[in-house]
Amino acid sequence: MLGKMMDQPLLISNLIVHAARYHGATEVVSVETTGGIERANWSMLDANARRLASVLDRLGLKFEDRCATIAWNNRRHMEIYFCVAGAGLVCHTINPRLHPEQLIYIVNHAEDKVLFFDRTFLPAVTKLKEHLNTVEHYVLMGPRDDEAAGMLDGLLFYDELLEQGDVGYDWPQFDETRASSLCYTSGTTGHPKGVLYTHRSTMLHTLAGNQPDGLAISAKDTVLPVVPMFHVNAWGVPYIAAANGAKLILPGPGLDGESLVKLIDDEGVTLALGVPTIWMGLLGALEKTGSKAKSLVRTVVGGSALPPSMIPTFRDKYGVELIHAWGMTETSPLGTLNQLLQKHDALSDEAKAAIRLGQGRPPYGVEMRIVGEDGSTLPHDGKTQGELQVRGHWIVDTYFKASESALTDDGWFDTGDVATIDADGYMIIRDRAKDIIKSGGEWISSVELENILIGHPAITNATVIAARHPKWDERPVLVVQKNENAEVSEEELIAYFDGKVASWQVPDKVIFVDALPMGGTGKIVKAKLREEYGDLLMQDGEA
Amino acid sequence: MLGKMMDQPLLISNLIVHAARYHGATEVVSVETTGGIERANWSMLDANARRLASVLDRLGLKFEDRCATIAWNNRRHMEIYFCVAGAGLVCHTINPRLHPEQLIYIVNHAEDKVLFFDRTFLPAVTKLKEHLNTVEHYVLMGPRDDEAAGMLDGLLFYDELLEQGDVGYDWPQFDETRASSLCYTSGTTGHPKGVLYTHRSTMLHTLAGNQPDGLAISAKDTVLPVVPMFHVNAWGVPYIAAANGAKLILPGPGLDGESLVKLIDDEGVTLALGVPTIWMGLLGALEKTGSKAKSLVRTVVGGSALPPSMIPTFRDKYGVELIHAWGMTETSPLGTLNQLLQKHDALSDEAKAAIRLGQGRPPYGVEMRIVGEDGSTLPHDGKTQGELQVRGHWIVDTYFKASESALTDDGWFDTGDVATIDADGYMIIRDRAKDIIKSGGEWISSVELENILIGHPAITNATVIAARHPKWDERPVLVVQKNENAEVSEEELIAYFDGKVASWQVPDKVIFVDALPMGGTGKIVKAKLREEYGDLLMQDGEA
Repeated sequence: MLGKMMDQPLLISNLIVHAARYHGATEVVSVETTGGIERANWSMLDANARRLASVLDRLGLKFEDRCATIAWNNRRHMEIYFCVAGAGLVCHTINPRLHPEQLIYIVNHAEDKVLFFDRTFLPAVTKLKEHLNTVEHYVLMGPRDDEAAGMLDGLLFYDELLEQGDVGYDWPQFDETRASSLCYTSGTTGHPKGVLYTHRSTMLHTLAGNQPDGLAISAKDTVLPVVPMFHVNAWGVPYIAAANGAKLILPGPGLDGESLVKLIDDEGVTLALGVPTIWMGLLGALEKTGSKAKSLVRTVVGGSALPPSMIPTFRDKYGVELIHAWGMTETSPLGTLNQLLQKHDALSDEAKAAIRLGQGRPPYGVEMRIVGEDGSTLPHDGKTQGELQVRGHWIVDTYFKASESALTDDGWFDTGDVATIDADGYMIIRDRAKDIIKSGGEWISSVELENILIGHPAITNATVIAARHPKWDERPVLVVQKNENAEVSEEELIAYFDGKVASWQVPDKVIFVDALPMGGTGKIVKAKLREEYGDLLMQDGEA
Repeated sequence: MLGKMMDQPLLISNLIVHAARYHGATEVVSVETTGGIERANWSMLDANARRLASVLDRLGLKFEDRCATIAWNNRRHMEIYFCVAGAGLVCHTINPRLHPEQLIYIVNHAEDKVLFFDRTFLPAVTKLKEHLNTVEHYVLMGPRDDEAAGMLDGLLFYDELLEQGDVGYDWPQFDETRASSLCYTSGTTGHPKGVLYTHRSTMLHTLAGNQPDGLAISAKDTVLPVVPMFHVNAWGVPYIAAANGAKLILPGPGLDGESLVKLIDDEGVTLALGVPTIWMGLLGALEKTGSKAKSLVRTVVGGSALPPSMIPTFRDKYGVELIHAWGMTETSPLGTLNQLLQKHDALSDEAKAAIRLGQGRPPYGVEMRIVGEDGSTLPHDGKTQGELQVRGHWIVDTYFKASESALTDDGWFDTGDVATIDADGYMIIRDRAKDIIKSGGEWISSVELENILIGHPAITNATVIAARHPKWDERPVLVVQKNENAEVSEEELIAYFDGKVASWQVPDKVIFVDALPMGGTGKIVKAKLREEYGDLLMQDGEA
């Protein structure tokens, strides 16, 4: 056509440039790894990111080389996010809670050239070093530290690198489909797999994920991402905050309730984001300290099942809106977010809370469907359960270095979750596909049973597994860790489900254990329990 | 890199698909051209757009053929927006208020193949027809109408075309940098120039323009775009409403205050958008009818200078937030939008209103600078005036069919406005570059003088022009149309500026006229006045 609009690539460096130019004096406040509060601003972050980029250039890093981080949420980590991607390198964020073998695997698989890490992780990195085949530069994220220098040969210090940097460094321009960042998912089987985000996918996630029914971060917000920057880009908050000039509060290593209450009150946090256990801790600390978290308007929660009491507790005690969201490493992560529609206005608080317990609906940019075991597309009626598949601008296509696409033949990503979707697009995760219990042709959600069980006062932790059954194929079995000193019988726990689920969904058996097996990311390892107790009901054939 | 994310083009058809799937039952309410209210929804719009696209296919239209509209804001116009762009054709929206010669010029220049028009414009189209060289199909946007059929040979009827359409039509997939829509600017000199938007520019405008500090339209909103759909995509509202599933109220031809008040109250409008004269009419009608516009939360205003009283009037009488925005046909249009920052929280209402009178700051995606006459970049200090230049994802690069770029050598679009920008990026338009008065090396804003003058009770309309001056180069001269029966002298009007501007900015002379010359888009034609009165002060050389 004889005409055109400006064609500029969607690059992550644009965001930090925008933040520095139009929100330069807006603060980025960090809790330092070594304690204390540090105050910076968007203008300083851009300047430091440029300084660091010039140093990485000088260290000989080449386009799309990977630079890894093992770090808390803090100012230096933010600078690395923008510097590495902005310079055309790839920012590989690593979860420090992984098992050492997994850490070694992913650093070697990613072929990381630089490893940035917080002081906290120095002992671990020192031990891992001999197994990391590609890392050329180890950078401690802080000032010179002679003790640390003595522990790791050739250790570089972030603050010294900045001093050598060139603030006049120009962000390079390149194609927006180039890789920007890398995050590994820790599947329950096989090796972790890397999702390689592009500048385009990240930028579209930033813009579409921050619509008014999305994260909705504005320049008036003070945002506290408790969700770690090593978890799927801290849900996109670093980028969205830069694009919109929000004040940012980075909590460092102190994720306990009391530290968070203090940060929220001291800094006037309006929006905080994290997983349910963080908010359980926060609610406990609010109760204990008597704080009303007056500045807080909204919390976003995701990452695991939401206890039903959490929405009314935040609402009634603190006037805080709790927003449930869902996503995965493979989805950048925003897949759905639970905001109400205009037609829900007239509902009672309880009816609204019931809707908002679900995972919500997708923003523009994500499409969802559910499919049956035969691959057929199932109706969006809010009742039919099927395997959840997604596609969109920021969904994985091919895992890092994989030879095959991660998608179905017709181009959808299978999430491995079982879900329902209603006519308005509200999605509810019913279970992980591998954890669903297939009983007599019907599906029983282990998550639903767990959510009920977790409300029982005698229980510390519990899970539900599928045990093989000669007649019904599979039946639910509870595996339960009791509170210390609590007395509760198998019969009592099974009776606890009466009237709460259909009778055929009530679990068949209870196993009491001293402790449930936990994985590296804090989730119960059901596979281990299934191995141990999976055949427990095989003698019930004649029952 | 060995990995990737899904790569889907950003296409306008994605938006109507999203709206139909996730907000299908949400209403799109239209005031019909022939009177009465019509209720549709997003699902019906998608179905009708598909039907129409299949018909255009059958009529033999080829990829990137232009289809023109001369129409009000209504449901059929919305369907054409999405159908034409979605099918890979180009939607050319025409301002019916242009002079017939300009209409003929742009239809022929665009080589429009189809002309869709509302019943209102049938007489005009009938007269123009013989001059339109490329139009093959004339489509009246309504049901069959025998009288109309008798007036224009071969006239097609929109509703009949839909009946012949195929609702199973699949939206084609193509490159996102293909053209989607076309809008001509009516410059004051030379022929109108066409801005050819792309799917990419439109989609990025949709996402970045609707951040929380942007238009901020959500699924909870009921949006009334009073700004016409023939004005720069109705400021992007049709696309943003679809992307976010808002309820949409389309006012048709009735843009008078009382009609708008009734629509706002009947439909529960939460956000309305339009030019200042529309809001003057609305405020008058609210006063007259006694309505408090209870549902209304926000109005967005742009397109011409904002009377200072409008922000406090909306705020204090109706509890409505007035949001000032700025843009041009060349900028899709969103260039800036005036939302406050967190640091403004503590200001008084008056101090906030003073900031919000300006044009505001750019969202991510637009960059701004001001340059001097010598091309040097000027400081963003809120005081220095310079020519405003912009660049970004949705800014014109080359006008339709132009052989040369519309940009400066270093890639910026010169808006033709003179502005200041402060350290936070808040921009204030001081004047059109061609209207600024250059007096003794200083610049005097004709807009500032006009804004003062318009507050004088004896005046209906007025403008300020630059008259050549032998000593000062240029000096301001007022051209004034008095109220009927009002008595006011030249001396009184000049004294009216005392204490309101610096003494060297006070106009030298007043010309009283019976009527000011008005152009096709309702703006005063200053060029004509300068021609007539530009040499009036040349005898003042010795003064």
